Amino acid sequence: MNIKGQHHHTIWVNEQNPNLIQAFDQRWFPHQIEVFDMSTSDAAAYAIKEMVVRGAPLIGVTAAYGMYLACIEAKEKDRPKEYIAEVATKLNATRPTAVNLQWALNEMLNAVHSISDPDQRVDAALKRANEIKEEDITICNHIGKHGLNLIEEIAERKQGEPVQILTHCNAGWLATIDWGTATSPVYQAHEKGIPVHVWVDETRPRNQGASLTAFELNEQGVPHTLINDNTGGHLMQHGLVDLVIVGTDRTTRNGDVANKIGTYLKALAAHDNQIPFYVALPSSTIDWTIKDGLKEIPIETRDEDEVKYIQGFVDGSVKSVLICPESTPAVNYGFDVTPAKYVTGLITERGICEASEKGLLGLFPEKA
Amino acid sequence: MNIKGQHHHTIWVNEQNPNLIQAFDQRWFPHQIEVFDMSTSDAAAYAIKEMVVRGAPLIGVTAAYGMYLACIEAKEKDRPKEYIAEVATKLNATRPTAVNLQWALNEMLNAVHSISDPDQRVDAALKRANEIKEEDITICNHIGKHGLNLIEEIAERKQGEPVQILTHCNAGWLATIDWGTATSPVYQAHEKGIPVHVWVDETRPRNQGASLTAFELNEQGVPHTLINDNTGGHLMQHGLVDLVIVGTDRTTRNGDVANKIGTYLKALAAHDNQIPFYVALPSSTIDWTIKDGLKEIPIETRDEDEVKYIQGFVDGSVKSVLICPESTPAVNYGFDVTPAKYVTGLITERGICEASEKGLLGLFPEKA
Repeated sequence: MNIKGQHHHTIWVNEQNPNLIQAFDQRWFPHQIEVFDMSTSDAAAYAIKEMVVRGAPLIGVTAAYGMYLACIEAKEKDRPKEYIAEVATKLNATRPTAVNLQWALNEMLNAVHSISDPDQRVDAALKRANEIKEEDITICNHIGKHGLNLIEEIAERKQGEPVQILTHCNAGWLATIDWGTATSPVYQAHEKGIPVHVWVDETRPRNQGASLTAFELNEQGVPHTLINDNTGGHLMQHGLVDLVIVGTDRTTRNGDVANKIGTYLKALAAHDNQIPFYVALPSSTIDWTIKDGLKEIPIETRDEDEVKYIQGFVDGSVKSVLICPESTPAVNYGFDVTPAKYVTGLITERGICEASEKGLLGLFPEKA
Repeated sequence: MNIKGQHHHTIWVNEQNPNLIQAFDQRWFPHQIEVFDMSTSDAAAYAIKEMVVRGAPLIGVTAAYGMYLACIEAKEKDRPKEYIAEVATKLNATRPTAVNLQWALNEMLNAVHSISDPDQRVDAALKRANEIKEEDITICNHIGKHGLNLIEEIAERKQGEPVQILTHCNAGWLATIDWGTATSPVYQAHEKGIPVHVWVDETRPRNQGASLTAFELNEQGVPHTLINDNTGGHLMQHGLVDLVIVGTDRTTRNGDVANKIGTYLKALAAHDNQIPFYVALPSSTIDWTIKDGLKEIPIETRDEDEVKYIQGFVDGSVKSVLICPESTPAVNYGFDVTPAKYVTGLITERGICEASEKGLLGLFPEKA
């Protein structure tokens, strides 16, 4: 999608130097648009862990390029083949909740596993990483087409009034390579001239809604309004939301959905007010090995300072302000799990299904 | 309660100068502890409107003293009696949701209504304002005693493990004169040696949980942890909350509860996880004239900059940081309404009752 009218991806191979991976440094958005250079697998691990890049699909692609960089390292430093598996383990430890990370690492390991020539391994790794990136774009585009049907149905009913969509966190193009997951149907509706308006949850503690989703929608010209995370329930009670679409970091075989902390509260409010609550996801986000999201999905606990300090722009630079007494203890869970019973449907690249094992297997029979 | 080990009220008549009302300026808490001087009714209106003071009970008491200052003005500037009613109208317009404001203004108008001598009117106004203040302390103390029973019941079951209480916003002593409403049972349990731990919602947009509730509990030595507003549902799903207690700005005859935006979402999560959800309130917060909270309680819309900018401490002073693109539109609803069906009970100065007309009339039969 666009930044300042120009089309971009979130991550790319440098045109002059194929050993250099570059990505937008999302830590300073929207106040500073900077590019982060990754020329080592350590840099890729840092980028994921420190949230230079974030969003389950983009994490997966970044990890894939990290594996490509590991193959270059193995070649240049004459490291044994085991080195590549070690890097995979290191990359996998950067973020515990997003399952695309594991998926992408396995894809990369499979791609290079049988190749013993270091040069060929580098080539195969770059090829597979590029493929994973291109697949993500296609998948997000397909998610958008399927989700577009939902928006069109509501638009028909609303006869010219904008379709009111609420989203939490950033499951936008900045969380993927292009299009986004939850935002892809929105962008496609907007491009088709269907009037839409997005309620953007700010999404504390890191405010990815305020800093990324609002930024994205603004650059794309999609009408939107920023709200506090506390506000969605009130809007739903008053008929101001037609549809909720969020992303996910891991969805179980049964349709339980892990997503940014606070998603569960919005799902409850949608349920209480009979508002459809959809989750958009590439199938790489489905963890087919587990069923009970509440018991089985590990929830990342992050630094308490993300709760106590809020980052923003003041006096010409990005700073963090303390919002409580300095000695106050805080806790920072990154995600919560929305039980499948509160999810109206899952929007995947193959179509929309019920949030259940039966629903998912209907679209992905090979996983039966 | 205490600040730096010394007992304080939130508002008081200056000891040397009875024409000067003083209150803690809560806009800079916890980073700067300042006192705000009110020597005119305009200053009292400003203090309420600009949230120098906030919290339904404290708003009521401040308005009462504002009426006392109006009586002084009428005397000193030889204004007609109508002036006092005009000031009441002005004060009433400062905040639309808290019903204690109307209640306190009516109390004050009744107290001075029949007095034509300006000196006597000033004396009567001061007497009634002081009474309203003292009544608030007694009421909050009684709320605490009734709520304490709930905590004691849970403590018995938990056999020495701390009772885990979640609260939203600040319904603490800083929202009242002393004790608080939602916090009063907590303080009384703590004083009695019952182990308690409070989950403090930060409460965007103005973060009264982070800046006031965390501060209060810290000064009082009550164990607590600050969380983002998004976190409560996750905690409840994992059995980490035993009890929710919040305050209210207006409760209807039927038990619908208006409170700080986001309260409704916590009530839904408590309901979904079978966790008791109580609302603590002085009966002055009950609006006996209305039944349907969602339809009849006016919800204050405040400046969108409270959403776009967050205030905190940085570089030695209190500043506001921008968290989104500068051009992003935002909306700022101050309150939401939790339907009575999600409220386990109301903790009033006369005891605990079901959140229903029947329940409330059982405690307040004079309102039948």
